[in-house]
Amino acid sequence: MGSGYFLCARKERRTGRSGPFLVLVLQDVSGAIDAKVFNDVDALSTEFDAGEFVAVQGKGNLFNSRLEVVVERIRRVIPSDAAAGFREEDCIPASKRPIDEMWSELEERIASVQDRNIRSLLVRILELHGRRLRIWPAARQVHHAFRGGLLEHILKIMEIAVALADSYGLRRDLVIAGALLHDIGKLEELTYDPAIDYSVEGNLIGHIVIGASMLRDLAREFPEMPTETALELEHMILSHHGSKELGSPVKPMTAEAMILAAADDLDAKLQQVRQHLADDSTPGRFTVYHRYLERVLLKPGAV
Amino acid sequence: MGSGYFLCARKERRTGRSGPFLVLVLQDVSGAIDAKVFNDVDALSTEFDAGEFVAVQGKGNLFNSRLEVVVERIRRVIPSDAAAGFREEDCIPASKRPIDEMWSELEERIASVQDRNIRSLLVRILELHGRRLRIWPAARQVHHAFRGGLLEHILKIMEIAVALADSYGLRRDLVIAGALLHDIGKLEELTYDPAIDYSVEGNLIGHIVIGASMLRDLAREFPEMPTETALELEHMILSHHGSKELGSPVKPMTAEAMILAAADDLDAKLQQVRQHLADDSTPGRFTVYHRYLERVLLKPGAV
Amino acid sequence: MGSGYFLCARKERRTGRSGPFLVLVLQDVSGAIDAKVFNDVDALSTEFDAGEFVAVQGKGNLFNSRLEVVVERIRRVIPSDAAAGFREEDCIPASKRPIDEMWSELEERIASVQDRNIRSLLVRILELHGRRLRIWPAARQVHHAFRGGLLEHILKIMEIAVALADSYGLRRDLVIAGALLHDIGKLEELTYDPAIDYSVEGNLIGHIVIGASMLRDLAREFPEMPTETALELEHMILSHHGSKELGSPVKPMTAEAMILAAADDLDAKLQQVRQHLADDSTPGRFTVYHRYLERVLLKPGAV
Amino acid sequence: MGSGYFLCARKERRTGRSGPFLVLVLQDVSGAIDAKVFNDVDALSTEFDAGEFVAVQGKGNLFNSRLEVVVERIRRVIPSDAAAGFREEDCIPASKRPIDEMWSELEERIASVQDRNIRSLLVRILELHGRRLRIWPAARQVHHAFRGGLLEHILKIMEIAVALADSYGLRRDLVIAGALLHDIGKLEELTYDPAIDYSVEGNLIGHIVIGASMLRDLAREFPEMPTETALELEHMILSHHGSKELGSPVKPMTAEAMILAAADDLDAKLQQVRQHLADDSTPGRFTVYHRYLERVLLKPGAV
Amino acid sequence: MGSGYFLCARKERRTGRSGPFLVLVLQDVSGAIDAKVFNDVDALSTEFDAGEFVAVQGKGNLFNSRLEVVVERIRRVIPSDAAAGFREEDCIPASKRPIDEMWSELEERIASVQDRNIRSLLVRILELHGRRLRIWPAARQVHHAFRGGLLEHILKIMEIAVALADSYGLRRDLVIAGALLHDIGKLEELTYDPAIDYSVEGNLIGHIVIGASMLRDLAREFPEMPTETALELEHMILSHHGSKELGSPVKPMTAEAMILAAADDLDAKLQQVRQHLADDSTPGRFTVYHRYLERVLLKPGAV
Amino acid sequence: MGSGYFLCARKERRTGRSGPFLVLVLQDVSGAIDAKVFNDVDALSTEFDAGEFVAVQGKGNLFNSRLEVVVERIRRVIPSDAAAGFREEDCIPASKRPIDEMWSELEERIASVQDRNIRSLLVRILELHGRRLRIWPAARQVHHAFRGGLLEHILKIMEIAVALADSYGLRRDLVIAGALLHDIGKLEELTYDPAIDYSVEGNLIGHIVIGASMLRDLAREFPEMPTETALELEHMILSHHGSKELGSPVKPMTAEAMILAAADDLDAKLQQVRQHLADDSTPGRFTVYHRYLERVLLKPGAV
Repeated sequence: MGSGYFLCARKERRTGRSGPFLVLVLQDVSGAIDAKVFNDVDALSTEFDAGEFVAVQGKGNLFNSRLEVVVERIRRVIPSDAAAGFREEDCIPASKRPIDEMWSELEERIASVQDRNIRSLLVRILELHGRRLRIWPAARQVHHAFRGGLLEHILKIMEIAVALADSYGLRRDLVIAGALLHDIGKLEELTYDPAIDYSVEGNLIGHIVIGASMLRDLAREFPEMPTETALELEHMILSHHGSKELGSPVKPMTAEAMILAAADDLDAKLQQVRQHLADDSTPGRFTVYHRYLERVLLKPGAV
Repeated sequence: MGSGYFLCARKERRTGRSGPFLVLVLQDVSGAIDAKVFNDVDALSTEFDAGEFVAVQGKGNLFNSRLEVVVERIRRVIPSDAAAGFREEDCIPASKRPIDEMWSELEERIASVQDRNIRSLLVRILELHGRRLRIWPAARQVHHAFRGGLLEHILKIMEIAVALADSYGLRRDLVIAGALLHDIGKLEELTYDPAIDYSVEGNLIGHIVIGASMLRDLAREFPEMPTETALELEHMILSHHGSKELGSPVKPMTAEAMILAAADDLDAKLQQVRQHLADDSTPGRFTVYHRYLERVLLKPGAV
Repeated sequence: MGSGYFLCARKERRTGRSGPFLVLVLQDVSGAIDAKVFNDVDALSTEFDAGEFVAVQGKGNLFNSRLEVVVERIRRVIPSDAAAGFREEDCIPASKRPIDEMWSELEERIASVQDRNIRSLLVRILELHGRRLRIWPAARQVHHAFRGGLLEHILKIMEIAVALADSYGLRRDLVIAGALLHDIGKLEELTYDPAIDYSVEGNLIGHIVIGASMLRDLAREFPEMPTETALELEHMILSHHGSKELGSPVKPMTAEAMILAAADDLDAKLQQVRQHLADDSTPGRFTVYHRYLERVLLKPGAV
Repeated sequence: MGSGYFLCARKERRTGRSGPFLVLVLQDVSGAIDAKVFNDVDALSTEFDAGEFVAVQGKGNLFNSRLEVVVERIRRVIPSDAAAGFREEDCIPASKRPIDEMWSELEERIASVQDRNIRSLLVRILELHGRRLRIWPAARQVHHAFRGGLLEHILKIMEIAVALADSYGLRRDLVIAGALLHDIGKLEELTYDPAIDYSVEGNLIGHIVIGASMLRDLAREFPEMPTETALELEHMILSHHGSKELGSPVKPMTAEAMILAAADDLDAKLQQVRQHLADDSTPGRFTVYHRYLERVLLKPGAV
Repeated sequence: MGSGYFLCARKERRTGRSGPFLVLVLQDVSGAIDAKVFNDVDALSTEFDAGEFVAVQGKGNLFNSRLEVVVERIRRVIPSDAAAGFREEDCIPASKRPIDEMWSELEERIASVQDRNIRSLLVRILELHGRRLRIWPAARQVHHAFRGGLLEHILKIMEIAVALADSYGLRRDLVIAGALLHDIGKLEELTYDPAIDYSVEGNLIGHIVIGASMLRDLAREFPEMPTETALELEHMILSHHGSKELGSPVKPMTAEAMILAAADDLDAKLQQVRQHLADDSTPGRFTVYHRYLERVLLKPGAV
Repeated sequence: MGSGYFLCARKERRTGRSGPFLVLVLQDVSGAIDAKVFNDVDALSTEFDAGEFVAVQGKGNLFNSRLEVVVERIRRVIPSDAAAGFREEDCIPASKRPIDEMWSELEERIASVQDRNIRSLLVRILELHGRRLRIWPAARQVHHAFRGGLLEHILKIMEIAVALADSYGLRRDLVIAGALLHDIGKLEELTYDPAIDYSVEGNLIGHIVIGASMLRDLAREFPEMPTETALELEHMILSHHGSKELGSPVKPMTAEAMILAAADDLDAKLQQVRQHLADDSTPGRFTVYHRYLERVLLKPGAV
């Protein structure tokens, strides 16, 4: 591979019979790659940590059908690397939409909410969590696993869910709120620095229940909001995976909750489709098999 | 029950140990009701057939938690019944939207298709199947099981799917075609006269494969249409139930097919929600349990 | 049936074609029975409400293999009924263990907790929720659906889980806390007056998440409790159904959470076994089929 | 219904609030029918027992869509009933093939076995269990639930499995043995007198394991049989339901065991098809829905 | 590995960080093997294509428990290779039965069909598709994935299904037709040149629906065939996987369709058994685990 | 890796295109490791066999994320190795509890059985199978796969099940017997010498049915034992996996059988938890993913 700059997204020390070695995940805009350090493990291990930008030298190694790098030299980035071409933004996968543009869209959507209580609650969320909401990823992998991915996902669901609610004459305010709230627990479930990982709370509680608790606490600041409204919003968070098998402790019991669950499922799938088509460089009319979608995809063609 | 006018939607003669009896389904705009004839079976049986409008006298009987009628007198409607208040339209459940209005909307949607081949094919479908498409139900029960139900369902899916395709920058022409085509096989799967039932072909082949065959035949009239376009359209019909378990022999392999499957699933669910809320007259904030959706529903309330 | 005193556990007005009728659930210590009122519906309907004790006259009617009562006269209990033999306790199914005895056992268990933070939190729960904890049922039906049923269920799980934790050298404090907390959300999920029903919050949120929120709020009163301890307790509540299919949004990730889930599952099953054996009066070595356990049971015999 | 002679296949006393009543299953060649006794329960109950032929008077009653008889008079058959037309064989559903003819076919098949050990073992089974093997039913309901049903089922499977084994060049001796042995445990699982029921051993152990034990005991009489041969035969019994979900503790691991499982499954299904077509008297090209096969069936027609 | 001649069944160019490489599948009569080209990728890539016979030099490399070849030199076969020992038939896995012998058997079976319409239709299929039917494989992998495999599979199913139909007194003509027709769609689903792959139509439509369409078109040439006969044949194609989960859009609704599905399932399994036993060279009484059958197999032994 | 002493637990000869090679599993107290021999295969193969202790020289090789050894020299252990440090007990994973201590506990438990017949039967089992019961493993992998593992597992289940039976007032004698008997079939299902493998009987019949047969034979020595007692014991063996999907041909139909199944499931899970926590050396609060438990585990911490 020669050499390059990466974000070190994970770093684990393991011990085999031939001694200790490091297992790394290195990331740049084009995606993530596995890497291993076998030589000088103890010395090199002090030269960098997970979450830091690193300069790496090594050579590629085809391992189990996926490219893997055997690292020979690795150290954290130093100021002078800038002159050699290092730029943070080259190492961090990010949404293609500018964050400020997305943020404005979100504020406009929230301003369009008619119900005063709901609108105030949403505005308060932006105040409290704005810093993280602007940059957070939506997942560690699978879909929208990049800077701004959560915001991009929220906005798309909002757009879709509003269109659906309007089409069926349903309560638009509820679906706007649901779109913002449904994954709000991911702000606590995931750590992002900028490596992405699960927090202790994330593993033990999960973003669905964390989000429900965040809403419940927040709703206390709005005593004028009818109890049932707050319960409906919490219900939308809890039911947004659509079924128990998929991790929702309750099924959607309102038309708006059904719309939210459908919009979330569709957006997650379509983002995986887009990513898979972009990653695939094989010849022929179909992509390779997609592990999560469990199918091959037809590449866009003549029509 | 006193007496009333109905459409006799089903009529079966069964034989028990105490002799023959008739099992009927009677329908009016408010829905369907089970009925039985125990007396004068042979004589009464000649007085009417399934698919006819009937004048009925009998008395209600609570049977297995559902209301059931024991018929004492029944005969087909005669001209003089009009004077007594009989009107065909009171006996046939129908879409709330006027059929001409829906038809115009369909023609406009089709006119908006950019691809000349696809547009011609859709126009041809209206020519060939227009008479039935205007009035057909979408199912024997479960959802949209009424006059004009198929058309109403098609238009809703078209509206939703176009919005979704536009939102994701996908091929709008394909989803318009998919919306019209996806259930086209129901024109052969169901008989409607105006009682609704399954045809022999409907049972043995099913609307998914019937629809695919109808499209395949039709596509031959448009030799200029690229093969892959025709295959993509057929694929949308075949995959629109979303998974093998639900009866699709292939899974959606294009973004447009995924959108169509999501729109179909959502519209079917929301129509059931609307119907269930309309039918429910119990007190309290929740409906009774819905057998197909497998949940209770929150009644629309304060928000 | 002649006549008798009952608790009216449910009362619904429905309208059939032959007019309105009432659907009731009547309860006494021997269990629940369905009943219907067909005559004088409007007049009789004013004579009583759900949650009240009622004097009933009617006649039995075999309906769909289950006994059902057709009510002819019904009114709420009046003081003079006491002279005629009415006693509240005959109409309310209740735990066989005296409540005070159970409460003392609970207090002792809690006093045995070594960890000061956990013990204080559990004591606080008794203060806040003691009134309801003493009498609440554990379910609307299925298992422990009677006065004191929740407390009886908690104590049994506590006893089992402590034995298991000791046997495996695991953290006894955690399982005592888990046993008290795991169903705490049922205090809000169910209403009990003394008819048992689901609350709006119970349907929309469910006792698992309600319980997690109750704990989270309470834990704030104990700032010295380590964050991870509070998370482990919340995790035990959330994971106590053992799998997503059964409604837990996360699987048990600690040995103590696994023990709690196993104890809960076993106690629920064994209580159903005990109840089913007690209810069964058929001849032969096996009971009739149990709908939830999905099997017949061998009656205790010679061994 | 007027009156008639039946076999009383089941008799249970239940107690409702309006007093005790009897639940019966009455059988004649045309099938089984549910019946209830509400009047003179104590007196009538002494007049007959399950397993006896009875003379019944009563009237039909449509209950839950199935015909049910309310019995008014019932007593065991007495000698003089013969003069009034009673014949045992009219009350006992039985195979259409004469038992002696089936028995000869079985003996011939066994005589055709080449392997001396296997042949001796099969001959020994006929000696030991011949009396029951000639008349036993194959099930309490579902399929072949009639006199001689087990033998008919065994012979059909033998015929099919031999054809399949020959076609694939597999070991014909093994499949002949497997066909005789696979359901041999039903001789102990079911009681037949001539009412059909499950024995205590049948419920607790099940015919699959009972059959394996019967074989294991028997195999000891043939010490010259290679151990692996005995294990293969036992394996065929154990695996003949084809999968764990269907109750086989092991999956078929030999080609012959796969053939046996396929033959058993197909014969059970086709017997249900034949029975369902024979029972169905509805008009139209399709039968009513079959509960176990989970489908409607096309009636044989023009081809 | 030294060197050898193969059929290049697949050829994909992928790009890793260390540059482009080729992923190949090479085939000879003994089976298929994965191979990779890392050196001189661009130059070597012009020397051969998928579907061609190639001369290969390289060395074996154990990779992920399966043997894999790293190719050093590769080029398409040239005439002079014949002298060096190259023979096409050594590189193409093929049925052990001579194709002419199988073809005669097929013609005889078809000649035995009594129904004139069905017989004519089957004869017409041989005329139209004979060239491909003689040589086509039945799958890309799993079972009968070799030259003549489809024909071998069809004949075996025909033999079995006729035996079963005769045994049950069912319509022999229908199962002969079903056996020929059930996989007819594979002629379009797969490409074979002689590498085996899925066509675009194969992926998007699938062999079940392709086959149904082929039959429907063909049936138009036989206007005297009763509609229901054509529908029954189409139903047999559609239902031959036996259940929706396995990809059949309808379940078998006739005894003949059930027989066809059972025969297809059994033959596919037994061919996998035969292949697995032939491939296994481990010591001991059991084979290694079979991934699709999900079990180990007992090797034929002493009996 | 340098060199070391191991137990050779498995040895398979496979043939790749580059010639034959050996696949080994080597074991010492710290666990098992895969190994391969590529050089001098024929010569080295004569130097040792599976089930022998071996001296190995080779080098580690990271293969598919798991450490694997490429063996360069290997031979069976010779007496003089003792001087070089070889000790059998270092190569055989074993229970941490001394076997004599466990055996005494088992004898005491059995002595506590009140029912004379059951006690005698259990004592007889110790006489007959004591030698193997003392040392047998409980599985080839997954849980308790070490010397004395079966005994350790039996005792733990006995302890738990007695506590549960006492708590519910159930029959303690039955659960003691069930704990000893439930896995007794593993004495025949597994071979242990000291490599662990499945026997032919183990694969074809499985430990559940083997155990049932062993009991059935033994019970004949105790003619005074009531038939139903013997059946209940056999039922406990058969039902101890809790459901058909998990391999039990019958579900538990007594409270004691339910307790046994719950105790077995819990002990198997908790032993896996303990093992996984012991094996995990990663940093962070959670272990790596556990393949059978399908989750990550929280490491014991602060509480």
